[in-house]
Amino acid sequence: MLLGPDELDDFAEGCAVLGTGGGGDVEPAVAQAAAALQAHGPIEVIDLDVLADDDLVLPLAGWGAPTVSIEKLGSGREGHVLRDAAERWFGRVVGALMPGEIGGGNGVHPLAWAAAMGLPLADADGMGRAFPEGPQVAMQVAGLSPAPAFLADEHGNVVTLEPVDGDWYERLARIVTVAFGGSAWGADFIMTAETARGTTVRRSVTHAIEIGRARRDAGVHGVLAATGGLRLIGGKVAEVERRTSGGFARGEVVVVGTGDDRGREVRIHVQNENLRATDGDRLLAVVPDLITVLDEATGSAIPTERMRYGQRVIVIGIPCDPLWRTESGLAVAGPGAFGFADPYRPVEELARG
Amino acid sequence: MLLGPDELDDFAEGCAVLGTGGGGDVEPAVAQAAAALQAHGPIEVIDLDVLADDDLVLPLAGWGAPTVSIEKLGSGREGHVLRDAAERWFGRVVGALMPGEIGGGNGVHPLAWAAAMGLPLADADGMGRAFPEGPQVAMQVAGLSPAPAFLADEHGNVVTLEPVDGDWYERLARIVTVAFGGSAWGADFIMTAETARGTTVRRSVTHAIEIGRARRDAGVHGVLAATGGLRLIGGKVAEVERRTSGGFARGEVVVVGTGDDRGREVRIHVQNENLRATDGDRLLAVVPDLITVLDEATGSAIPTERMRYGQRVIVIGIPCDPLWRTESGLAVAGPGAFGFADPYRPVEELARG
Repeated sequence: MLLGPDELDDFAEGCAVLGTGGGGDVEPAVAQAAAALQAHGPIEVIDLDVLADDDLVLPLAGWGAPTVSIEKLGSGREGHVLRDAAERWFGRVVGALMPGEIGGGNGVHPLAWAAAMGLPLADADGMGRAFPEGPQVAMQVAGLSPAPAFLADEHGNVVTLEPVDGDWYERLARIVTVAFGGSAWGADFIMTAETARGTTVRRSVTHAIEIGRARRDAGVHGVLAATGGLRLIGGKVAEVERRTSGGFARGEVVVVGTGDDRGREVRIHVQNENLRATDGDRLLAVVPDLITVLDEATGSAIPTERMRYGQRVIVIGIPCDPLWRTESGLAVAGPGAFGFADPYRPVEELARG
Repeated sequence: MLLGPDELDDFAEGCAVLGTGGGGDVEPAVAQAAAALQAHGPIEVIDLDVLADDDLVLPLAGWGAPTVSIEKLGSGREGHVLRDAAERWFGRVVGALMPGEIGGGNGVHPLAWAAAMGLPLADADGMGRAFPEGPQVAMQVAGLSPAPAFLADEHGNVVTLEPVDGDWYERLARIVTVAFGGSAWGADFIMTAETARGTTVRRSVTHAIEIGRARRDAGVHGVLAATGGLRLIGGKVAEVERRTSGGFARGEVVVVGTGDDRGREVRIHVQNENLRATDGDRLLAVVPDLITVLDEATGSAIPTERMRYGQRVIVIGIPCDPLWRTESGLAVAGPGAFGFADPYRPVEELARG
């Protein structure tokens, strides 16, 4: 499948939905991708089955606060530098790029590099959504090591990390990102296509485009149909509380029901992404399922940092990829991994009451 | 030449003299080296001419504050980890270890690893002395790049740096050292024996042993004879002023003359190492020449952090390796590199008045 300027907006809208409030702002990523597609032509989105078994798949993701990324634009060369570092390390060719997370701007950015490098984009990602921490990826659940992980900045500096565990990975990558001025691009969990087939979330690029297209055709209803999502509440944003702590944007959003939902009130807990939605004592949805706030009129996803008092919204819950519902998936990104006491229950089950 | 327990003390005394007040405390390094020599037998010190042209020479040096290094002992495996990282990167075997700087504990430590790994120690180093900053080495003067530079901690974490220049190297290495808890072991300017022959200070291990032996036989006079050093003053430490700023131990030491030197007063400027000695307006010695404070009774070098009011000392100036007196050597480590306004003049010339 070719992905060109005509598909870009649909793809970005889909990434925003899967970003579940986070994953980085899509707007700067769309601008960069549009310019790259203009200059280099459409990119090819290919299934992992099409790649040769030992082709390298290079997952790419941004590190650092989204607020910094918006102001400190990259050189546009970071992807090349990371590709070169991986090829030198493994002594074989990178066959395809892959978004580390499909959600938000992190899903859109690799498209710009694929165009500039003339490489295909694998139709897969590491999450099927966005999560706040680096090691919360399908490859981690599958038991792969993130090492060697490469970080690059806009000057051409490259740092290779071989951490002894996930905590050291987080710590070293964060401090190097700070030394780089607050944002960096990274490649980790680099693997062969053969390995990637069994350890990633498949078809997520195609899925994002489908979501975006459905939204364009049918707004909120289209998004619900394309994602298998469930409507949690329709109403007005009544409260937005944000604080930055521990390098994350944390807070709560309260939506007060209108129309059929008059009298109800839904509270969403946020740590970069929307993690948990409750109606009084009743749990409506919780990680690893997706909670996305859509603009009532357009069906476009509203990221956490653009949530405002008075917005008319529909909050939806989307079943996560089945891998997150396994025991090892829940250990990495279930309610307990974020400090919530709730035992995990699928959003479909919670909806039945 | 074999270097065993019998030569260790002489070697360490020589390293302390060449440490010119810094280079890290020799005592913990001597304890570790003694244990390694006991366990694995003497090491071989070999001239670079004896190595095959394309054998890798691995310069090793400690990063971080000496105060932290004393409290936070390494695992003793860092050298192995750095050797493995270098061999993997270059796809060839490490033929010999080399002290990055011969001065102080940094000169002694590689001996412990050479013993544990069964590798020879190259009879050379990167400075012929100690300097405060990583890139102040002969290989830098020769135009080599420090990259890839490897850093390892006691847990087994490894970070590889490919900085775009020396400033980025300092910045990234310092911040990773902080993430590692304040100290790290590193390998940089890794090169073949063929390259090392023309870009290092040769025979510095042998030289350190000669200095130590001469001290044992003839105290201060022995050190002066073995180093070609000049007596700058004999007297009592009258003032020691220390402050830590910018990650360095800075300060001043004042020695008031006794005996033939009665009525004179010499002031030494310190930044980890002793950098500049003056008598009133008269410059006596300045970097890159060595300024070392010896115990009057024993001839042992006193490191900056052990300088105390009332000590009876002889301050000596030692001509540096000729490479530091070239234009490019002075650009890297001359008076201007440390913010001093003095034009460089060799200590022998200054002594003639």
